Amino acid sequence: MSDVINTVWQRDMVFESDNPSGKKLTIDSSEEFGGTNSGLRPKALMLSSLAGCSGLDVVSLLNKMKEEIDDFKIVTSGELTEEHPKYYHKVKIDYHFYGKELNEKKIKKAVDLSIEKYCGVYEMFRQFAKMESEIHLHNK
Amino acid sequence: MSDVINTVWQRDMVFESDNPSGKKLTIDSSEEFGGTNSGLRPKALMLSSLAGCSGLDVVSLLNKMKEEIDDFKIVTSGELTEEHPKYYHKVKIDYHFYGKELNEKKIKKAVDLSIEKYCGVYEMFRQFAKMESEIHLHNK
Repeated sequence: MSDVINTVWQRDMVFESDNPSGKKLTIDSSEEFGGTNSGLRPKALMLSSLAGCSGLDVVSLLNKMKEEIDDFKIVTSGELTEEHPKYYHKVKIDYHFYGKELNEKKIKKAVDLSIEKYCGVYEMFRQFAKMESEIHLHNK
Repeated sequence: MSDVINTVWQRDMVFESDNPSGKKLTIDSSEEFGGTNSGLRPKALMLSSLAGCSGLDVVSLLNKMKEEIDDFKIVTSGELTEEHPKYYHKVKIDYHFYGKELNEKKIKKAVDLSIEKYCGVYEMFRQFAKMESEIHLHNK
């Protein structure tokens, strides 16, 4: 199976990119690099991709385990190399769960399954970055 | 320098992710995986990231070279592995340029500089995928 994405230049530093969902997104650079900051910066989309991929796994797995959570937030931090080409060589994912009587064992199992088995984006990141992940439980 | 991205669960399979630009994007899965298709699929964001990163380099370099183009489109095709975790193991970038009297040498130089020197996302992809790129000139 293949994904094919069209990214079309609009003007200045603005591009429009499509997605298998049918939705589109606008890309632009900062004013420092000649853009008008009217769209998403492309490199950081990698960190959204990672969080979204793993987040969907975790929600899906917790649903199957009948584990209820009130809120869930993922913070992905990517440290860039100093020299060109600048890429994320160290990446940390912090998984924050909020709820009453959170089941640590089930939550850890869901996160581990995503990281170790299901999340294809995590697998790609593993090839270029030193990865670290941490689970934070916020019991109400 | 680090990029820090917050991705917050909204409901069902919907997440909202931020970006250094201040813009946000919505992530959702397809109905097949329990979502409502109301947002972008996360894995394919990797291909938008790649196209956007390289596209911004190329437009910036062509501007510096005073090379005028009418239109510019990037098609990124990613072939997924069949087994979990499913990741893009073969990726092709097709750069399509449209214009009058396109200067092949300048365009090739801009694309090569992006691929070989500037595009950090391309550098990350190189670590997990077999990469291929091709330039297509469409003279009017």
